[in-house]
Amino acid sequence: MAQKPGIPKGTRDFSPTEVAKRKYIFNTIQRSFELYGFQAIETPSFENSSTLMGKYGEEGDRLIFKILNSGDFLAKTDEGLLKNKESKRITSQISEKALRYDLTVPFARYVVQHQNDIVFPFKRFQMQPVWRADRPQKGRYREFYQCDADVVGSKSLFQEVEFIQLYDAIFTDLGIATTIKLNNRKILSGIAEIIGASDKLIDFTVALDKLDKIGKEGVVKEMLAKGITETAIEKVQPLFNLNGTNQEKLDQLKVLLSGSDEGTQGIEDLQFVLENIMKLGLKSANLALDVTLARGLNYYTGAIFEVSANDVKLGSIGGGGRYDDLTGIFGLKDVSGVGISFGLDRIYLVLEELDLFKKVALPKPKVLFLNFGSDEAGYCLQAIKIFRESDIKTELYPDNKKIKKQLDYANKRGIELVVMVGSDELENNTYTLKNMNTGEQATYNLDELLKTAQNS
Amino acid sequence: MAQKPGIPKGTRDFSPTEVAKRKYIFNTIQRSFELYGFQAIETPSFENSSTLMGKYGEEGDRLIFKILNSGDFLAKTDEGLLKNKESKRITSQISEKALRYDLTVPFARYVVQHQNDIVFPFKRFQMQPVWRADRPQKGRYREFYQCDADVVGSKSLFQEVEFIQLYDAIFTDLGIATTIKLNNRKILSGIAEIIGASDKLIDFTVALDKLDKIGKEGVVKEMLAKGITETAIEKVQPLFNLNGTNQEKLDQLKVLLSGSDEGTQGIEDLQFVLENIMKLGLKSANLALDVTLARGLNYYTGAIFEVSANDVKLGSIGGGGRYDDLTGIFGLKDVSGVGISFGLDRIYLVLEELDLFKKVALPKPKVLFLNFGSDEAGYCLQAIKIFRESDIKTELYPDNKKIKKQLDYANKRGIELVVMVGSDELENNTYTLKNMNTGEQATYNLDELLKTAQNS
Repeated sequence: MAQKPGIPKGTRDFSPTEVAKRKYIFNTIQRSFELYGFQAIETPSFENSSTLMGKYGEEGDRLIFKILNSGDFLAKTDEGLLKNKESKRITSQISEKALRYDLTVPFARYVVQHQNDIVFPFKRFQMQPVWRADRPQKGRYREFYQCDADVVGSKSLFQEVEFIQLYDAIFTDLGIATTIKLNNRKILSGIAEIIGASDKLIDFTVALDKLDKIGKEGVVKEMLAKGITETAIEKVQPLFNLNGTNQEKLDQLKVLLSGSDEGTQGIEDLQFVLENIMKLGLKSANLALDVTLARGLNYYTGAIFEVSANDVKLGSIGGGGRYDDLTGIFGLKDVSGVGISFGLDRIYLVLEELDLFKKVALPKPKVLFLNFGSDEAGYCLQAIKIFRESDIKTELYPDNKKIKKQLDYANKRGIELVVMVGSDELENNTYTLKNMNTGEQATYNLDELLKTAQNS
Repeated sequence: MAQKPGIPKGTRDFSPTEVAKRKYIFNTIQRSFELYGFQAIETPSFENSSTLMGKYGEEGDRLIFKILNSGDFLAKTDEGLLKNKESKRITSQISEKALRYDLTVPFARYVVQHQNDIVFPFKRFQMQPVWRADRPQKGRYREFYQCDADVVGSKSLFQEVEFIQLYDAIFTDLGIATTIKLNNRKILSGIAEIIGASDKLIDFTVALDKLDKIGKEGVVKEMLAKGITETAIEKVQPLFNLNGTNQEKLDQLKVLLSGSDEGTQGIEDLQFVLENIMKLGLKSANLALDVTLARGLNYYTGAIFEVSANDVKLGSIGGGGRYDDLTGIFGLKDVSGVGISFGLDRIYLVLEELDLFKKVALPKPKVLFLNFGSDEAGYCLQAIKIFRESDIKTELYPDNKKIKKQLDYANKRGIELVVMVGSDELENNTYTLKNMNTGEQATYNLDELLKTAQNS
C-alpha cells in the first residue's frame, strides 16, 4: 500500500542546493584546518553504550538515542522489570549500542584506543553528524553536524594562540565579521576565591554579564538576591569598571586577583595569548577579553573561547577551550587537550542572512544538449564526451520531448547554455548554441562550440 | 572508573591516512557525477520504521537497526506480549525509527515527498553511510558507505549509455582496469519463456555461469539436477556456444529469442546501448554482454550492470540497472529509474592491492617549525602565518622539548621540511631550513625561506 512519506521530526532532507552550501562551509573550514596541520579522523556513528552513558550527565543520558539489540532481545531480560514496565532499568538489557551524542567523547575513546599508533601532540579534526533526542525547535535538530578541531598531548599556550588565529582565518574566509571572546577558567577560580564562594560563581558571572543592560545597581541587587555578600561584592568592585583595551582590562584584573595564585596564573596565561595575538594581528575578528564567559565551566580548566557574529543576533557560532583530563575517563591520564568547535547550522543561517552564499557554485550543469531524436542525440553524445573531458558539466536531455518542455527544464535548473542539433546541424556537422541568459544564438563547428562554451 | 575502550563489532575508526584515501575515492567519483549533471542530496540517518520495514524482504527487516523510543517506552506496550517476551511483535511498539539500510528506499521516499520541488528527469547522487546488523566478516561491515547515482523520470536508453560511460570514466580516473558486464532483464524473461519455467530461471543462470569452470557437460548435469527438462536445455543450446564479439553474441541471441516478444525487446535495448557505446568508445573498460548476469532479479526491469576489477579477484565493485516502479511503494506511479552504485570498501581494497593510492596527498603538514623557546616560537609564528597565507600546510611544534624529540615527531609524521630558529637566527632575522629527505640544511631570510619551501 502507498504510504504518505515523511521523515522523523528533528531530521532533515538536504536538497542539492543545500548540500552545495553546506559543503562550501565544510570545505572552507577544512582548508584552514589542514593549513594548520590538523588531520581528519572518523569514528563510527554508534558506540558501545558503556562508552557514552554517564559522560553527559543525567539529562545527556536521557537524550542519547539507543539502538535496540538485534534478534530476540527480550530473551534474557529481567521478568520483574518487564512486568513493572521499568523502561529505564530495562534499557541496558535490551540495548548495547547508542548513536554518538557529540564528537568529544568518541575522540577521547579514539585517542585512548589508538594511543600506540598516534604521534603526540595529536592535532585532529572531525566533521560528522551527532544525534540527540532533544525537543526540536528552530535551529535545533535531532541530527546535526558537529565540527571540532582539538590538539591533545601538549600544554603549550601557543595552541590557544593558534586557535584564535584559526577562528579568525576561517570566519574571514567565510566573510563573517566576528567577535572572539576569551576568558580563562583560572580567572574565574580567582574570582571565586575572592568572593569566598565557588558555589556562587555561576550566579556571579550571570549577574555580572548583565552590566551593560541593567547597570551596576541592578547587578549588585541581583548578586545580593543570590546570596553573595556585600563584603564579597565590595572586594570585586574593579570588575564593575573594567574598561579600555584588552591589555588595560588585564592590568586591572591583575591588581584585583593579586591575592589568588590561580587567578594570577590565569592572568599570565591570558597575557601570553594576548601579546602573541597582538604581535601577529588578526585579519578581521575582534578579540575581546570577557571575564563573564564561563561556558562548560566544569569541563574547561584553562582558556575558554566563544565566537559570535557581529552583524547577526544568533548566539554563539563557535566555542571551545582547554580541558586537562579528557581521556582520563578511558584510563589515559595527564593528556591535556584544547579544542574549538564550529556551529555549522548557525553558520549556515548567518551566511543566508548576510547573503554570503553568492559565491557558491550551485550544482547544475553548464550546458544542456537538447534531444531532437535518437540519431541527433547519438551525434550529440560525441560532443558531450569532449565537453566532459574538458571539465565542462554537461547533460543530454534524455528524451525526445517537445522542445518547449526541454527548454523549460533548462530554465528551471538554471542552465546557461543550450545546444540544439536538428537535421540541418546533423547534416552539416554543426551545433547551434543558445545562451539562455542573453538569448543569443549562433551555429558553430565542434571546435568553435567548445571554445565558446569554455569562454562563456 | 576507567573503561577499556573499544567500538561495536562491524564498525570502524578511520585514521587520518584512511580518511584521506577514502576521500580521494569519494572526490574522484563525485567529480564525474557532477560532470554528467548529477546533483547530491542527503537524507537523514534514520527514517520512520514504516518507511523502511517491508521493503527488503524478511531477512532485510531483520538486519535493520531499530532505534529505541525515548522516554518511558514500555508504558504503552502490550502486557501479554511483554510477559511472553515476544521480541518480534513488541518491536514496533517500542521503536518508531530505524537506521537506513540502503540509499535506494530513502531516495524513493525523497522523490515522492519532494516531487513538487523536483525538476524531472531528476539526476541525483548520494554518498552516505548505511547500517546493517549483518554478521561482520572480512570486507563486510555493519556501518559502511554506499555511493549511488540514479536518474528518475525518463525511460530513455541514453541513460544506460551514459552510465556505462560514467563507470568507464570513474574507474579510468582511479586507474582500475575493469570489465563492465551488461545484461537485460527482458533477455532473462525471454530465456525463462523458452525454458518454460520462470521459477527455474535463477537455477538456470547460476548453472550457466559455471560454463567456463565445469564445461558444458557439467552445466547440463547441474541443470538436470535442478529439475530443468532436457527439452528445455535442448531449446537453449545456443547459450552454451555464445561467442565472439558482443555484437556477434547479440546476433546469436536474436535467433534464439525470436519467439519471445519480451526477449526480442531486450535484444533491441541492448543493441541500442551497444551501438552507441561502440560509436563513442570507452577509455579503458571492457564492456561484455553476459546473459548470466542476474543481480537483484526481482528488482530490475531493464538493463543490468555489474563491474569487476580485471586484476584483483574480489567480486563486483559496482552494479546497477533499471527499475520501473521504485516510487510506487510511496504512491507515485510510473516513474522509471535507472542507477548505478559503487562498492566503496571493495574499491578501497582494490586500490590498496594495486598500490594506486600513491598519488593521494596524505594529510600532513609540509613544514614544521621547531620550538627553541617562547621568544623563538613567537618569532616563528610570524613566518608561519605567511606560510599558511601562501597555502603551505605548516605547523609549529608547540612545546620547547628536546630537539631530538621534535625531529622525531617530524619523521614520524613524514614532514618534509623543518625550520629551526635558535638565538642566532632570532638575532639575525633568519631561518635555518632542513630538508628531512635529503638532509640538506641552509639559512635564509624570510623571502628566500618561503620561495625555497614553495619550490620544494
